[in-house]
Amino acid sequence: MSERGTMVYDLLRQVRPLVLNSARVVEASLRADGLTVGTRAVLEILAERGPMTVPDIGDHLDLARQGIQRHVDDLTALGLTETRDNPAHRRSVLIAATPAGTELFARIRADELARLGTMAAEHGPADLVIALRVLESLNRDVRRQRDLS
Amino acid sequence: MSERGTMVYDLLRQVRPLVLNSARVVEASLRADGLTVGTRAVLEILAERGPMTVPDIGDHLDLARQGIQRHVDDLTALGLTETRDNPAHRRSVLIAATPAGTELFARIRADELARLGTMAAEHGPADLVIALRVLESLNRDVRRQRDLS
Repeated sequence: MSERGTMVYDLLRQVRPLVLNSARVVEASLRADGLTVGTRAVLEILAERGPMTVPDIGDHLDLARQGIQRHVDDLTALGLTETRDNPAHRRSVLIAATPAGTELFARIRADELARLGTMAAEHGPADLVIALRVLESLNRDVRRQRDLS
Repeated sequence: MSERGTMVYDLLRQVRPLVLNSARVVEASLRADGLTVGTRAVLEILAERGPMTVPDIGDHLDLARQGIQRHVDDLTALGLTETRDNPAHRRSVLIAATPAGTELFARIRADELARLGTMAAEHGPADLVIALRVLESLNRDVRRQRDLS
């Protein structure tokens, strides 16, 4: 059990530098469009899943409501998101990507995918699928522990 | 290439929530010992690699010097680290784990490994090794891009 624990531990030690350095790479490439890693993540959720409330965005990103609201304000100032009436709840508006926001996210994503496609080139698709499944399982179990602690 | 890019992208989307939620779980369990995720990371490097300077700790953790110095100050106040003369450079001291620091880290690590050993239980060791290799390759390539950007 401890040997298995060490393997999971080694795996988790890889993820922090990956997040930090990915964020720096993405930040550098987003700067020209006036976006940050945070505003990009919010724009992504809205472009992919459609309009939702600020708390719903927070649930998807595992982030606090206040941070999300700031990102939404920044995106709205850039003309990339807008508020819409919520048919389900009169008092909690929906946030939606504007056509300009949807278009910008599509371009950003295409550039990113081209760059990402060149990475970890020594691993074939089968390895990438296994790595994805392992990370999904870890996420599920770490989330469970978080909710217990 | 774009399909491969999408696979790497899906993989990278898993790592951010994993880092955030792991940090919350670890924080909760460290609180009783007066440690944080940051001070724990510094103590770990020192316990595993031996005494080193603050800039060297920063290089290992991909963190700025100022943050490291604060963590070292906190650890020293807790009696878990101490400064030592640096035989190589008279003006840059070495930071070392004290016996109490080494012992505390060993206990923390044993507890963590026991907990981690129960995670992602549907994946055998072969899958964990593949996932680790993929993340190592991604880290290498993302670091390269960071240095270019």
